[in-house]
Amino acid sequence: MSKLTDLPKRILIGRALRSDRLGETLLPKRIALPVFASDPLSSVAYAPGEVLLVLSVAGASAYHYSPWITLAIVALMVTVVASYRQTVHAYPGGGGAYEVATTNLGQKAGLSVASALLVDYVLTVAVSVASGVENLGSALPFAVQHKVLFSLVVIGLLALMNLRGVKESGTLFAIPTYAFVGGVIVMVLWGGFRGIVMGDVMRAPTADYQIKAEHAGLAGIALIFLLLRAFSSGCAALTGVEAISNGVPAFRKPKSKNAAATLSLMGVLAIVMFVGIMILAMTTKVRMAENPATDLLINGKPAGDGYTQNPVIAQVAEAVFGGGSFPFIFLAAATALVLFLAANTAYNGFPVLGSILAQDRYLPRQLHTRGDRLAFSNGIVLLALLAGALVYAFGADSTKLIQLYIVGVFVSFTFSQGGMVKHWNRHLAAETDPAARRRMHRARAINAFGMVFSALVLVVVLLTKFTHGAYVAVIGMVAWYAVMTSIRRHYDRVSEEIAAEEEGVGDETVRPSRVHSIVLVSKIHKPTLRALSYAKLMRSSGTLEALSVNVDTAETKLLQDEWERRGIDVPLKILDSPYREVTRPVIDYVKGLRKESPRDAVSVYIPEYVVGHWYEHLLHNQSALRLKGRLLFTPGVMVTSVPWQLDSSEAARKRARKRAEWSAPGAVRRGPVTPPKKEKAAKK
Amino acid sequence: MSKLTDLPKRILIGRALRSDRLGETLLPKRIALPVFASDPLSSVAYAPGEVLLVLSVAGASAYHYSPWITLAIVALMVTVVASYRQTVHAYPGGGGAYEVATTNLGQKAGLSVASALLVDYVLTVAVSVASGVENLGSALPFAVQHKVLFSLVVIGLLALMNLRGVKESGTLFAIPTYAFVGGVIVMVLWGGFRGIVMGDVMRAPTADYQIKAEHAGLAGIALIFLLLRAFSSGCAALTGVEAISNGVPAFRKPKSKNAAATLSLMGVLAIVMFVGIMILAMTTKVRMAENPATDLLINGKPAGDGYTQNPVIAQVAEAVFGGGSFPFIFLAAATALVLFLAANTAYNGFPVLGSILAQDRYLPRQLHTRGDRLAFSNGIVLLALLAGALVYAFGADSTKLIQLYIVGVFVSFTFSQGGMVKHWNRHLAAETDPAARRRMHRARAINAFGMVFSALVLVVVLLTKFTHGAYVAVIGMVAWYAVMTSIRRHYDRVSEEIAAEEEGVGDETVRPSRVHSIVLVSKIHKPTLRALSYAKLMRSSGTLEALSVNVDTAETKLLQDEWERRGIDVPLKILDSPYREVTRPVIDYVKGLRKESPRDAVSVYIPEYVVGHWYEHLLHNQSALRLKGRLLFTPGVMVTSVPWQLDSSEAARKRARKRAEWSAPGAVRRGPVTPPKKEKAAKK
Repeated sequence: MSKLTDLPKRILIGRALRSDRLGETLLPKRIALPVFASDPLSSVAYAPGEVLLVLSVAGASAYHYSPWITLAIVALMVTVVASYRQTVHAYPGGGGAYEVATTNLGQKAGLSVASALLVDYVLTVAVSVASGVENLGSALPFAVQHKVLFSLVVIGLLALMNLRGVKESGTLFAIPTYAFVGGVIVMVLWGGFRGIVMGDVMRAPTADYQIKAEHAGLAGIALIFLLLRAFSSGCAALTGVEAISNGVPAFRKPKSKNAAATLSLMGVLAIVMFVGIMILAMTTKVRMAENPATDLLINGKPAGDGYTQNPVIAQVAEAVFGGGSFPFIFLAAATALVLFLAANTAYNGFPVLGSILAQDRYLPRQLHTRGDRLAFSNGIVLLALLAGALVYAFGADSTKLIQLYIVGVFVSFTFSQGGMVKHWNRHLAAETDPAARRRMHRARAINAFGMVFSALVLVVVLLTKFTHGAYVAVIGMVAWYAVMTSIRRHYDRVSEEIAAEEEGVGDETVRPSRVHSIVLVSKIHKPTLRALSYAKLMRSSGTLEALSVNVDTAETKLLQDEWERRGIDVPLKILDSPYREVTRPVIDYVKGLRKESPRDAVSVYIPEYVVGHWYEHLLHNQSALRLKGRLLFTPGVMVTSVPWQLDSSEAARKRARKRAEWSAPGAVRRGPVTPPKKEKAAKK
Repeated sequence: MSKLTDLPKRILIGRALRSDRLGETLLPKRIALPVFASDPLSSVAYAPGEVLLVLSVAGASAYHYSPWITLAIVALMVTVVASYRQTVHAYPGGGGAYEVATTNLGQKAGLSVASALLVDYVLTVAVSVASGVENLGSALPFAVQHKVLFSLVVIGLLALMNLRGVKESGTLFAIPTYAFVGGVIVMVLWGGFRGIVMGDVMRAPTADYQIKAEHAGLAGIALIFLLLRAFSSGCAALTGVEAISNGVPAFRKPKSKNAAATLSLMGVLAIVMFVGIMILAMTTKVRMAENPATDLLINGKPAGDGYTQNPVIAQVAEAVFGGGSFPFIFLAAATALVLFLAANTAYNGFPVLGSILAQDRYLPRQLHTRGDRLAFSNGIVLLALLAGALVYAFGADSTKLIQLYIVGVFVSFTFSQGGMVKHWNRHLAAETDPAARRRMHRARAINAFGMVFSALVLVVVLLTKFTHGAYVAVIGMVAWYAVMTSIRRHYDRVSEEIAAEEEGVGDETVRPSRVHSIVLVSKIHKPTLRALSYAKLMRSSGTLEALSVNVDTAETKLLQDEWERRGIDVPLKILDSPYREVTRPVIDYVKGLRKESPRDAVSVYIPEYVVGHWYEHLLHNQSALRLKGRLLFTPGVMVTSVPWQLDSSEAARKRARKRAEWSAPGAVRRGPVTPPKKEKAAKK
């Protein structure tokens, strides 16, 4: 399989570069922040707009509710950050939501979280890329005019980068993240200075537009529902907060303390940026509509299909710095970059989660191998395909994609905090030291509050967003859940089937008494001679014969003559094949042997060519492979490949060696490999 | 590979039915005629229209040249049939154009013919299906309004039928072919009767239409060129004539005589039908235009895009029998059926030619195996894809596709007749009996005339059709030629590389002195125990140890404990793997062993699961397969798979058994398997 897909892959992604294993370097806080926080910090680039969008349904007058919504979101942020600080301290080995939920709430809860996270990774890519392209579009209109294409290209490029096994460096993350954070903070400060000190009136490009309210004068339950919807849209600002809690092992010591400090810093920055942008958006009178083509009125007329609604952050920057100015373009570029970086983190996280799930046998076992290139590649390609499909289906519209996003985030928040509550309960039962008990009581209170708040938000999100697209995410989670449970069931069934009996029972079914060895021969050449000499070395008990199928009488005659002339001391048996087949006569012969002496095993030696290029596979070994496939179904048969390396195989060998030296994406954020013993202990 | 593609295939084509091997039944002439002649006879369904189409370029007045063109085509038919009668006598073992050309003119000529034939098979499918749909459309307008879709569906259905391994019976061919031949002859007779005896004036539906001549009043060289083009279009009637000469072994004895008689009968029928249709077309004033939308005038106005130009045979039938009458619909259905049957013959012929080419190592060797389902399947799918692509690209327009068709036919005619001339030259040099020499002289004269005539037609076709589409066919041929020569070069290079030295030279590189056996162990279960017991049986010289890679310290500890508890008498070696990899540590260990004692061989036993469903492959064996792939690159290593059949493998075993009992398409027309000795003799 891997052979056949090798060429197109190599053309596209080139040969993997030799890169030294990372993992021995631990991250200082100033690098850990950008590495883990590009995803949560970047969400302030789209969250404010989503709040205004939803409010606009009730007309621009509804915008005056936005401070309250901002406050609610800030409260939620504080809660979530505080909750995760507890997790970071309790799970210094990396407390991913899946592990916390599994350990404390059981397999089903864990699996639900895992399903939510897998869906979330896909949406992180889709939303971040779509939003990145929209932000890029505020400075480069061309990008947003072809945003589906642009988004697909970015998703593809990220996949290629990760397939190549890019060496991740902290700097790669640090520059755009700090540029973005710095840019936003400078914008907030400069905007405040201009507004308050200089008394400038700054106006967003959309300040003079009117909004046609779909439901003007909304009140009562309908209004509350709208406000809740606006709030749940704003919750997009919280996505990615849990990243640090997964990455504790990558921090310098004291790991938990540094991670908690980084988490707090991230929370403060996110809140400052979010609040700052919201205040500026209000001050500069940014107008956003859910359907700008019809509901945004320019001089009383609908904006029409050609109108592109720029993100809030871009409109605010235009108001503060002036459109086309250097800081405006700088911020647009930094925003787009940090969003793409956020998408990139999903490319790292997806295979890592897959490997943990594989360890628990919910996904194919081979994904478990860390640094297994093929497993990573499959994950990367799958992620890119799913994200690409979503982007395509939703027209790369970040607003539409966000409807799907928030469900999964709050599923994992809720389960993870719930798991923490259980964790503290368990520890409290064993702890006697009053000071420690006090600390635990406080931590439990924080986590309990976090759980309740997250669960409430989850209910609100499901209620207000289900029909707007959240159902897609729910379907995705159910599908993942179903697939993973059936994989686990399969493994359990097989493991039961192959379990070894205790000594003495059923052993005779396993132990044959003699071996009948057969070497398959088509011509006398070096591969055949090698197979013969190996088979002779291995002959200890039983018989050895060479076997050839007569598909061409003249050639068979030549073979027999040469066999005699060379005096090869192994009897040559010829099978007739009137239909010029190879497989069937051999299978029938082997079955005959087995029938004659059912207690003996049969060992079949097949000389095999080792080739260097995928197309050479089409030219060699096909009959051998097919025969082998059929032989494996015959009980009591073992099949030995005796390889003959053709000269061309050298190329493939080099390729394989290079591939083995590949370093997996996301190495930085996972930290060094902890000795398996310790890791296990931390997990259980 | 075959596993992964198994499910979709099974859904689509179901399980192959058990069908008894054919091949023991020989064909009487009355069945051989429809089996081999559906292709050439069906071409009279489209050839007459092509002649009129081209003539219409010079206006309807040019139609009066059509008798001369008909005459030329009849003369060509007589020549070709007479030539192939010689071939049938000279090559009773089946004188396909490829074999005749290769034997007499050398490999390059043979390969050129083979390239032409491979392209022709694709075009047979494309042209026959497109024309069949057009004929169907004369009675069922719906079909021709969606002709691309309809054609693709028919191509797909034919492919599925052949993939299933339909049991071909003579009757299947006989009914539509005789219905078609009978229908056309009844039409010709009834038309003659009505016209001559009853004096009816029969008028085709297009009789009153005018043709806007693209080049009115054409004269001189331009006119001659147009007539030549009309002639070469009409030569489409000759496609498929060579089928009988390929199928001589399928005839009853005396094979050659019966085949020659069938060939003559086919020639007579084809000529009668072709001439009859042309005469009726003239009498009923059928009007055909190359671009009916613009060049066909109805009441002085262009017919427009909505107009469907029905085939000549359908228009004539409407004039003779009346539109919508039973005989009219019967003939339309029979015509469509016989054309689809003609397409079906290509599905048989393509893999058979592939098998012959594979024997000469121009195509992958495994295609050589007759009745090898996979080889056939690949051929069938490839053929369907190529034909489908052509049909799609040319809008299922039989007129456009025919431009590509005739080149290949005449390439093979010319080379085949040329080969026959050489054949007679060679035999004449050795023959002394005057009567025999006389016969040979006559045969050589016929073949020489055939060669010259065919070559002339080939030149005419190339000159008049190259820019109309024939270049596509030429590119196709060149591509096949290039692929086949490079495959042959590859095989020759490899065969040189692996040629065994004569005794005593270089033998020590092949013969190792001892074997170091390694059994890979992950857990103690039945598959592992079986592998261990097999390995112990095979241990004759050298050492044996079990090897496990430590990816999880806790699990490894359990393994070691159980190993000791069970008292397994094979030492267990644990390799450390800090990156949780399996492949690299094993490879490094094996390489280390080889370095220590380079003259020893290493034998690695891998317990392998045999599973029943493709998706189970994703869940098992992946690490083992990858490891195996890498081990094969290491010289001096052999790899033994010790299979463990899971319960689910029973399903796959049954499937494999059924697949083995599948009978290849085209069995009837290839006749019974001749004993390899005889076949070889006939070929050389």
